[in-house]
Amino acid sequence: MAQQKKMVEDITSMDEDFAKWYTDIVKKAELVDYSSVKGCMVIRPYGYAIWENIQKDLDERFKKTGHENVYMPMFIPESLLQIEKDHVEGFAPEVAWVTHGGNEKLAERLCVRPTSEVLFCEHYKKVINSYRDLPKLYNQWCSVVRWEKTTRPFLRSSEFLWQEGHTMHETEEEAREETMQMLKVYEDFYSESLAIPAITGKKTEKEKFAGAKETYTIEPMMHNGVALQGGTSHYFGSHFAETFGISFLGRDNKQHAPHQTSWGVSTRMIGAIIMVHGDNNGLVLPPKIAPIQVIIVPIAQHKEGVLDKAYELADKLGKNFRVKVDDSDNSPGWKFSQYEMKGVPLRLEIGPKDIENNQCVLVRRDNGEKSFVSLDELDTAVPEALKAVHDGMYQKALDNLKEKTHTALTYEEFLDTAKNKPGFIKAMWCGDVECENKIKDETGGVKSRCIPFEEEHLSDKCVCCSKPAKYQVYWGKQY
Amino acid sequence: MAQQKKMVEDITSMDEDFAKWYTDIVKKAELVDYSSVKGCMVIRPYGYAIWENIQKDLDERFKKTGHENVYMPMFIPESLLQIEKDHVEGFAPEVAWVTHGGNEKLAERLCVRPTSEVLFCEHYKKVINSYRDLPKLYNQWCSVVRWEKTTRPFLRSSEFLWQEGHTMHETEEEAREETMQMLKVYEDFYSESLAIPAITGKKTEKEKFAGAKETYTIEPMMHNGVALQGGTSHYFGSHFAETFGISFLGRDNKQHAPHQTSWGVSTRMIGAIIMVHGDNNGLVLPPKIAPIQVIIVPIAQHKEGVLDKAYELADKLGKNFRVKVDDSDNSPGWKFSQYEMKGVPLRLEIGPKDIENNQCVLVRRDNGEKSFVSLDELDTAVPEALKAVHDGMYQKALDNLKEKTHTALTYEEFLDTAKNKPGFIKAMWCGDVECENKIKDETGGVKSRCIPFEEEHLSDKCVCCSKPAKYQVYWGKQY
Repeated sequence: MAQQKKMVEDITSMDEDFAKWYTDIVKKAELVDYSSVKGCMVIRPYGYAIWENIQKDLDERFKKTGHENVYMPMFIPESLLQIEKDHVEGFAPEVAWVTHGGNEKLAERLCVRPTSEVLFCEHYKKVINSYRDLPKLYNQWCSVVRWEKTTRPFLRSSEFLWQEGHTMHETEEEAREETMQMLKVYEDFYSESLAIPAITGKKTEKEKFAGAKETYTIEPMMHNGVALQGGTSHYFGSHFAETFGISFLGRDNKQHAPHQTSWGVSTRMIGAIIMVHGDNNGLVLPPKIAPIQVIIVPIAQHKEGVLDKAYELADKLGKNFRVKVDDSDNSPGWKFSQYEMKGVPLRLEIGPKDIENNQCVLVRRDNGEKSFVSLDELDTAVPEALKAVHDGMYQKALDNLKEKTHTALTYEEFLDTAKNKPGFIKAMWCGDVECENKIKDETGGVKSRCIPFEEEHLSDKCVCCSKPAKYQVYWGKQY
Repeated sequence: MAQQKKMVEDITSMDEDFAKWYTDIVKKAELVDYSSVKGCMVIRPYGYAIWENIQKDLDERFKKTGHENVYMPMFIPESLLQIEKDHVEGFAPEVAWVTHGGNEKLAERLCVRPTSEVLFCEHYKKVINSYRDLPKLYNQWCSVVRWEKTTRPFLRSSEFLWQEGHTMHETEEEAREETMQMLKVYEDFYSESLAIPAITGKKTEKEKFAGAKETYTIEPMMHNGVALQGGTSHYFGSHFAETFGISFLGRDNKQHAPHQTSWGVSTRMIGAIIMVHGDNNGLVLPPKIAPIQVIIVPIAQHKEGVLDKAYELADKLGKNFRVKVDDSDNSPGWKFSQYEMKGVPLRLEIGPKDIENNQCVLVRRDNGEKSFVSLDELDTAVPEALKAVHDGMYQKALDNLKEKTHTALTYEEFLDTAKNKPGFIKAMWCGDVECENKIKDETGGVKSRCIPFEEEHLSDKCVCCSKPAKYQVYWGKQY
């Protein structure tokens, strides 16, 4: 029969070809399918279920910090996009343009939103009049389009799903606090829900968001040492507000421009999950966002009582966890491989002998550790095991991050590390964009990741030009 | 101060100008703002919170019936849209066309999805091979674009939010069951969660979905007697599947084309909520989807203990309901009007005298009924009152539906009713599109709503041409 013939096929080893390993997982774990539109992906049920869990978790964090969801149009008239000079320069080269509605040519071209600052500003102009209308703490879940030349599922696609927070505040201080608060929300989410540690800090002028005053970033490191910009939080000052003519009557009875932030994370995080935690058997999903947290595999399921017991355990555990029983005709071995590929954090095996002994076998996905557990203790053993999987995953990722973070004091050392040791490089920097450009050119793409919040004093000199150093920077290649 | 000066302004009476009453509510209840893109709306926090509650409720119903969420690209290449003739004829005149990506002209135009049948078919072709891969029960939450000439918030906008289910089945029988099941899911949702009764039935050939074999519809009646197509469920047969080359190896070891359905509801439902339940004081929201179910208004809040008591009640009720305390400086009278405008189902007033008597006042939004309730009984009184509001709203809407449903046996009677009595008209029909066209032309827009599942035998003749009648039809004007 068709399905029985289907076997879990091997995936490329990550050490052999990391890029191919990545696309193998994306396909074989059934996260994504390619579509006939270049660079746009179909997110399949298993991939979308991960996104739904991410959304639910993050949305709760946003609401707890006082944010409300809204929905803005997906189109931006060309003239509206052009109001802010830096912003349009940053985005115009990569937007999709709508020129016709039905059979008629539009009077003005519309771009499909690449991000929605200008739409929020247009709306805020109408609803902000007094300091009593502030703060405005809005967020939007939607899809955005950036016309990319080279695309890869989750990492870089022409259309992707994301959330974009856009807030307006009475004072600079409050807006700056919001910017940092949301970076912290992302940092907590990464560590608590995705089991991903990361470097956080401020982007350099060159790397900041088009139109922002300051950009803060969270930069997790993938298993192969390459960085992924995992989320950003921007402080805009009141520049956009002034450009758009947004003002409010202050407590001093004078007109002021409000202070603005925006912040966002996207389906790209699924790419990070794959590349931080995955192994040669497939995905490894953090328990908090795994669509299936416990897969129950009945052993010798044709024997009397086995399936019944499996369903009974599923019912019991299902009250608190996302549980599935695989009662298909496939062999237990096939099932083991299948759910390893899909990254299910915990496997529960139950067979006739186990039932006799009132026990089952729990197997952790992250390290393969097996343990026999009494069925009477399952209610505490399962959450403990899930927590252990989470902690184990976090520690492994942290070890990788530490191991692949290097220090360079001289330019020679920097070039040598960039060439031979994948990962982040800590080095001093004078603050000039010329050095950033030189480093990028001479290393085949190493960029400043960020200036960390707690800088180390590694030396007095810029690693590149030897002029006095102003900052300590994390450098690295990125996806 | 700015906000204190702001008063709840009167809205146009619905009897005076129903259309203006509608737009007044949409604006003054802060559901929507207009944007600079023609026909696209900004859904504000209060409006979006209603949509979130609708989504959550419906999504649970979809998952309970075995459906999984996915995400398809928002673009459709022109050649893909053109594969199915009827479908492209139905949609091509109203799609937005993307012609440029960045500065480059695209080799092929892409339309922004007006609906996603063809994208689902393209994907299904790749993932359906055997009967064991069936059924595929997919749903998608997204925004779609249909370039409308005349637009109104929620009712008809160029971009709107919706869900679209797309399923594939092994047999015709199963696909037909799915089509009817999803119509039933919509019907239950309308009555149980929106407190809206409705007519259901089958669309005529003329009114069915472009490319479908059969379309089933749910048709609630607005307060003014006008219909709103509230949701549709389509049976496609295997025509799309054959056109797209989708086939599976059947149990008989032969290749077969699967049978397909699709079904959808949209933000338009918020328009229905407004027009079915609203009154001259504003919105009236069904308790199940109201963002605030109970608004607590403290009376004489400057007096000691009042605010503390209000917060205490909010904490207590907040465990099971969506509750807000309005502790702003505005007067109680202003607050009453404000939350009536916003349609909050239940108001709880608490003042010094109430506290003394260990009671509070509950006021129903639907009929203004006041009752004194002991604070000890609040835990049961509040859910009872919310249920009473729901039931009262449903009954009122049902009465309106019944009262405004007329029967016409002759064409003269039909024309007279269409002209003078707003609402639905039950009448017999021969089944010819000529009669549908004639009726539409001669009544200024009365169309067949549907052939109900339980037809009445009103006479033997078509109300229009007097030829033998084949069906009983509900007729009516629509939004």
